[in-house]
Amino acid sequence: MLLVSDLGEHALLERIRSRVPPPPPWVLVGIGDDAAVVEPARGSVDVLTTDALIEGVHFDRRFSSAADVGYKALAVNLSDLAAMGAAPRTALLSLGLPPALSVADLDALMDGLLELAALESVALAGGNIARSPGPLWLSLTASGAVRRRRVLPRGGGRAGDELFVSGTIGGAAAGLEALQAGAAEGAALEDCAARHRRPVPRVRLGRLIAGNRVASACMDLSDGLADAVRQVAAASGLGAIVEAAAIPLHEGARDWFGRGGRDPVDAALAAGEDYELLFAVASRRRSRLATVRRQARGLALTRIGILTADPAVRLRKADGDRDLPAGYQHFQSR
Amino acid sequence: MLLVSDLGEHALLERIRSRVPPPPPWVLVGIGDDAAVVEPARGSVDVLTTDALIEGVHFDRRFSSAADVGYKALAVNLSDLAAMGAAPRTALLSLGLPPALSVADLDALMDGLLELAALESVALAGGNIARSPGPLWLSLTASGAVRRRRVLPRGGGRAGDELFVSGTIGGAAAGLEALQAGAAEGAALEDCAARHRRPVPRVRLGRLIAGNRVASACMDLSDGLADAVRQVAAASGLGAIVEAAAIPLHEGARDWFGRGGRDPVDAALAAGEDYELLFAVASRRRSRLATVRRQARGLALTRIGILTADPAVRLRKADGDRDLPAGYQHFQSR
Repeated sequence: MLLVSDLGEHALLERIRSRVPPPPPWVLVGIGDDAAVVEPARGSVDVLTTDALIEGVHFDRRFSSAADVGYKALAVNLSDLAAMGAAPRTALLSLGLPPALSVADLDALMDGLLELAALESVALAGGNIARSPGPLWLSLTASGAVRRRRVLPRGGGRAGDELFVSGTIGGAAAGLEALQAGAAEGAALEDCAARHRRPVPRVRLGRLIAGNRVASACMDLSDGLADAVRQVAAASGLGAIVEAAAIPLHEGARDWFGRGGRDPVDAALAAGEDYELLFAVASRRRSRLATVRRQARGLALTRIGILTADPAVRLRKADGDRDLPAGYQHFQSR
Repeated sequence: MLLVSDLGEHALLERIRSRVPPPPPWVLVGIGDDAAVVEPARGSVDVLTTDALIEGVHFDRRFSSAADVGYKALAVNLSDLAAMGAAPRTALLSLGLPPALSVADLDALMDGLLELAALESVALAGGNIARSPGPLWLSLTASGAVRRRRVLPRGGGRAGDELFVSGTIGGAAAGLEALQAGAAEGAALEDCAARHRRPVPRVRLGRLIAGNRVASACMDLSDGLADAVRQVAAASGLGAIVEAAAIPLHEGARDWFGRGGRDPVDAALAAGEDYELLFAVASRRRSRLATVRRQARGLALTRIGILTADPAVRLRKADGDRDLPAGYQHFQSR
């Protein structure tokens, strides 16, 4: 089996470069120079984000193929662009490669990444490879464009704005747990596992929300719904009430968390990796939200609560209100 | 001693954010949202690059302080922007943090990075932190701006263009070797050690070369002079002759490599981490080069050879010509 350590840096770079399709015309200089050169999108501002995946922290090669890992590394970055309302344009890939990684796995990783790049019209414009004496890691930077007045801030909410979330909640975390338990069986849990392996960044939704000027605030759920509600409320200088019964639990998450005797809503609120969007909508923007709904191709947009002048962040259940649990914390063990 | 693992992700991010100065007005959204939002520079194209430093591969904490590491992580990226002729604007920092890293070291790392950012007017506009089960690593992305017709390509050389290199060669590698041998003593070798720890990106020179339209091709020497000559020649579809006697060896490198019985020129040609610029100048641009020299504040610009129609890349010594040695290869051990 050919390993990364069997090839020199130039041969590895050439191998990666050969898999990358020709760039669009606005990439003036792509892979192979000291830096990429990109024509800015006219009438837009640049949106830039970076996020990393590390073996043993963010993925486990027993549950995710190399192609899944490449796909997800781009997906989590595109999710951040979606949360700003930006159209993705370019990505740069920084790789830490263990010498014992097979070249076939490196190829598959690139193919997974490039599969999503093609779907979302992202040009891989450059990158870097380095030898990693520890685990495999991928750090990506994605850039996108949005018209200046359409940028979706995290902290623009007003008291009384309603909170909406896209899609379903808790699926990715339930999927990972089920994979770890060797029990990701049945359609609902298989879908959860797929959501862990290959999250769907809500790029189209983010652009619709921005283009229709629906939202006063928006962020993605990389660190879970509870964390996102807290962040949006805090950045807006507000509190929030979330209605437990309204949270759109993933069917597989309801099943899985329930099996373990946990409250599925509490578990899903604290679960990371749901790359859905949370956004706040003023009541006078309700008609615009209807427009977005029509254009969202069946993606659920669920009202889960409201921003409040009272700075407390509360979860409303049938038996009363209590503090919303904390979100997922990367530096604590799970 | 407070460790990274003693703090949650939000506390770490807040700690980092508190050290970052307020951004310039063209950073519309900085650290703390899903992504950064940057106003493009008017009349310019965007230049984007990414490069990483990994503990045990690119730095050794016995020889480099945490502040040195932060400084260098930005410096190596700015060197890539310099090679394109771009003025740096923003940086994004992706960190892989071992849980046992001290918070004091994280603070120092940020301070070193921000020291260079302030010197070069770079805004740290965003980033990401993740737990690393292996070594400490930093992956940076830097963006800059240059007028479209001023971009310095790697492959624009013509046969007969003369090759110039800035500064001196071999210092950083000699410095690292001397540090490893516990012998980095005396002014020349101490300067070599400093060049390993805190390379000076030739940002100002790159902008002068681009602004005066001096060069037909340019790249930086991250992987050594021999590699750079090969890359510029290959990208231009040409060969090259390098004159050994003309290479501006760092005084400490001449001393150090000579002590080991090596040919100092051969050792310096193959040595990485000289973040100088190599550029090609057509004879009709000689008067412009004189202008750049006057503006370069005493930085040496030395003619070391010529691009040739013959595709061979040769080193000319007193006793005849031979193939230029290969450059530094990251995936081979040193």
